[in-house]
Amino acid sequence: MVTVAVDAMGGDHAPHTEVAGAVDAVRSYDVKVILVGREDVLRRELARHGDVSSLPIEIVHASERITMEDSAAKALRNKKDSSVRVASRLVAEGRAQGLVSAGNTGAAMATAKIVQGMVPGVIRPALASAMPTMSGRYTVLMDVGANVDCTPKMLVQFAIMGEVYSRIILKTESPRVGLLSIGEEEHKGNELTRAVTPLLKGLPLNFVGNVEGRDLYSGAVDVIICDGFVGNVVLKTSEGLADAMRQMLTEALSATPARKLGYLLARPAFAEFKRRVDYYEPGGAPLLGVRGVCIICHGSSPPRALKNAIRVAAEYAAGGVNRQIEEELSRWNALQLAAKVD
Amino acid sequence: MVTVAVDAMGGDHAPHTEVAGAVDAVRSYDVKVILVGREDVLRRELARHGDVSSLPIEIVHASERITMEDSAAKALRNKKDSSVRVASRLVAEGRAQGLVSAGNTGAAMATAKIVQGMVPGVIRPALASAMPTMSGRYTVLMDVGANVDCTPKMLVQFAIMGEVYSRIILKTESPRVGLLSIGEEEHKGNELTRAVTPLLKGLPLNFVGNVEGRDLYSGAVDVIICDGFVGNVVLKTSEGLADAMRQMLTEALSATPARKLGYLLARPAFAEFKRRVDYYEPGGAPLLGVRGVCIICHGSSPPRALKNAIRVAAEYAAGGVNRQIEEELSRWNALQLAAKVD
Repeated sequence: MVTVAVDAMGGDHAPHTEVAGAVDAVRSYDVKVILVGREDVLRRELARHGDVSSLPIEIVHASERITMEDSAAKALRNKKDSSVRVASRLVAEGRAQGLVSAGNTGAAMATAKIVQGMVPGVIRPALASAMPTMSGRYTVLMDVGANVDCTPKMLVQFAIMGEVYSRIILKTESPRVGLLSIGEEEHKGNELTRAVTPLLKGLPLNFVGNVEGRDLYSGAVDVIICDGFVGNVVLKTSEGLADAMRQMLTEALSATPARKLGYLLARPAFAEFKRRVDYYEPGGAPLLGVRGVCIICHGSSPPRALKNAIRVAAEYAAGGVNRQIEEELSRWNALQLAAKVD
Repeated sequence: MVTVAVDAMGGDHAPHTEVAGAVDAVRSYDVKVILVGREDVLRRELARHGDVSSLPIEIVHASERITMEDSAAKALRNKKDSSVRVASRLVAEGRAQGLVSAGNTGAAMATAKIVQGMVPGVIRPALASAMPTMSGRYTVLMDVGANVDCTPKMLVQFAIMGEVYSRIILKTESPRVGLLSIGEEEHKGNELTRAVTPLLKGLPLNFVGNVEGRDLYSGAVDVIICDGFVGNVVLKTSEGLADAMRQMLTEALSATPARKLGYLLARPAFAEFKRRVDYYEPGGAPLLGVRGVCIICHGSSPPRALKNAIRVAAEYAAGGVNRQIEEELSRWNALQLAAKVD
């Protein structure tokens, strides 16, 4: 059975959300969870879920917590006994196979990278987000914020890692990989995209060329690559727009009695709609390229997002994503060397 | 009365959309329109709107049209009698005060820049898009695609131009200007944003610091600045997501008879919602920094988008946006010189 270490003190509503998500996860999936944080607090929170003594949940004590205001560098230097660091150490030591955190994203990423280390051959880990599409499938967007300024080689590695993730975790057959740009034509784009395109063409994967922002939600591509600045802006823009649209719709639907009645009659449609555009549904964003597994959740995640993230962490570990990434990267390195020898 | 030259052969449904939008505009606003394109075709299309002889609409002949597939550089070189070029020339010659085109965006921007020229002091014109927000007001996002790779100085000019546009056209008092980044903290961002922040702080305008993708739709900021690659990706992502959400909602609402009935009862709510998130509503994106006025519309724009773009072009000309931009830029240049002297 896969064991997942959960940073139970990270999120906006910690440890309530983390504990509720963990209890639900071990009841639903074949997974063990280690909750990491203040032992007394976690024990009290766990007790609220009735008799949990038979569940595969363990508590490991950590005396400190990193807040959303802490800088990643300072947190790493000063808070050696933080919940996220202790949880990451459990993965590094092999007591757990994956880390899940809804805490300070920058600190969690830096911790996983340093404490767990990187998969051999990886230049920089990257954050991958699964975006809901019209086709009902998810499109992987990466990097969504781990690396602000990127080199062409980093983007090539993102393509390789994203393709493996889509194939193993999202079960996509021969994932179509696109490069996020501002037009389908190859010459359109910025300095970075123009430098990356020829490299992506040389990869042994299904590269479909430049794609545009629109393609994120059409489901026409399975993996979309960009630098972490663009990806993060796109992700937050999308979340902001989805929230704004939901709020505008709610306002419009509650303005008159007739509209309210209409809403009541069509309620299942709204529930279905909400589920389809819910960015919490995939559960979290994996930091691809670190040893072990690291899944980052929104600070405001509800328990079901934590539950889903724990499931994804377990699948990631069981599916051998990192071994695949290592193999693909070394294949690419070999190709590069061969090209240089010619 | 302001005269607007409309490239009548540019859009996906040209000249139908352009002519319908022009007829509606001159009937609704105090504006004159010159339709530019194949004279026989335009005359025939105009005749479909009944007796238009008393309307302030003129036709100017242009024998060629630029297609969506033409490259901007080639079109400029080879198609000297294209509808967009002839229309732009009318502005350069003072026969019209503004140009509106729903044609090839790259070609229209390049044509306006070369034929109409630039406002003194402007390094590069930039495309500004008005985004609908939850507050009911618009937030100006720029650049959305005119300049793919930008220098810090270019972004400073975008801030100055966007502020003037928001103040004069959108009637915002003391517009709040933000820099699009991936966190509110100043140190977060990429090389470009970190270089721009200190420059923006030195401007005599209401700079509020870094903003995130979420802030685009909250209405918390009035002008958001970014390079044209990021802006274009954000714009197209937003359009794609809005379309996807509308489609998912429509699917969900037509799945059962009860939902359909609910939809009928609440129909005015959906009409209101659609209007609020309609990216055609503002009518088009002005290319700020060119002499005269240049408003770029979506190729797929409906007639009302053209109508609104003609109104915005007239307001832009009448409001003296360019004179304001020129003054603000020379004030900034003076400040820079003063800083160097110290």
